[in-house]
Amino acid sequence: MSLPADTGSGSSPARLVCLSHVFTDGMPAFPGDPSPQLTPLATVEREGYTAYRMHSGLHVGTHVDAPIHMVPGGKYIDDFPPEAFTGPGRLLDVRGRSVIDEDTLAGAVLEPGDILLLLTGHSRLFGGEAYYRDHPLVTERFARALSDRRIKALGMDLPSPDRYPFEVHHLLLGRDILLFENLTNLEALLPVSAFRVHAFPPRLHAEAAPVNVVAAIG
Amino acid sequence: MSLPADTGSGSSPARLVCLSHVFTDGMPAFPGDPSPQLTPLATVEREGYTAYRMHSGLHVGTHVDAPIHMVPGGKYIDDFPPEAFTGPGRLLDVRGRSVIDEDTLAGAVLEPGDILLLLTGHSRLFGGEAYYRDHPLVTERFARALSDRRIKALGMDLPSPDRYPFEVHHLLLGRDILLFENLTNLEALLPVSAFRVHAFPPRLHAEAAPVNVVAAIG
Repeated sequence: MSLPADTGSGSSPARLVCLSHVFTDGMPAFPGDPSPQLTPLATVEREGYTAYRMHSGLHVGTHVDAPIHMVPGGKYIDDFPPEAFTGPGRLLDVRGRSVIDEDTLAGAVLEPGDILLLLTGHSRLFGGEAYYRDHPLVTERFARALSDRRIKALGMDLPSPDRYPFEVHHLLLGRDILLFENLTNLEALLPVSAFRVHAFPPRLHAEAAPVNVVAAIG
Repeated sequence: MSLPADTGSGSSPARLVCLSHVFTDGMPAFPGDPSPQLTPLATVEREGYTAYRMHSGLHVGTHVDAPIHMVPGGKYIDDFPPEAFTGPGRLLDVRGRSVIDEDTLAGAVLEPGDILLLLTGHSRLFGGEAYYRDHPLVTERFARALSDRRIKALGMDLPSPDRYPFEVHHLLLGRDILLFENLTNLEALLPVSAFRVHAFPPRLHAEAAPVNVVAAIG
């Protein structure tokens, strides 16, 4: 497509990289969750306008988890100001590891307020059942190190950083550190030295929301 | 809440202004559309985790319309690259007008690629039935002027720029100019000289999507 040039005022435009899966009807959901429905009730060819209806849980495709997902009395998505959903991005390349422990942070530059993205390579399995069955896991020690460094959010190309009883979820969400799950295309950031993450979800009064996570470079 | 400082690399942080309504269970929808449902299937107090299910049309609350909503063969939300959803913002103060015609653009600075936001003041009625019943309307001439100036998107604190047969929708969406509807808090931009708009919707394969529209200042 040919978009108009971005020549106007405001900060200079950045190169943007999309880190989000497309949300489609019937895409695989987390085991136990119902399959999402995105159904055309009307189409422009038949009725003169297109109108889809969405019927879905909120942990499908690329999404963000808020504290109330796991933490009693925790915040909902709509409780957060926009500043919670954008920040300096950091990429951690942990491809080839099935367990992501604290040692992977050795030498990593990580400042308070950063949004850390974990590249495991697992997103290549997205769309099949194997994606949810067997995936790399984040340790509690790793999560505690992120919490100590006061990062703003953790994103990953995984359906979850952990399994039942979800100690990593509890630890991070308990400190209002948001979780971005089911990212993709993180390999595109490997050659990039500095970027920001924009990941503003629709303001659902809920424990999670589908979201378009974007990296802005330069 | 106390967020960690944003001290890291990347572009310097901007002041952010949220222009989006909260999406709540049962909030009023466009006349004829079913009322949206955002229902807790599990709560952290009872089941140990919170999980809402969403059942809704996609023109509820703050949302974006893609061409396929009205244009045969038009693009879906997920067909657009992230660049389509961010750009230099312009505010047009049209409070007090019931008809927004081409003359309101006299003297307005508007460049190709800009995202134009219409402040009508109508968002004060959001949440009640009157919001949808009687609202300011945009003329076809106004829409054609925006198309001629090759703006990227038009946002407004209205449920729609027009009524059946939706000629403004057809005209703008026919040129891939996106429509952001049901914005709020645009008054906060009145004293601002330059800002960018970020409005990345979840990548639904659909004709519209709920979205968090944010202005980044400075």
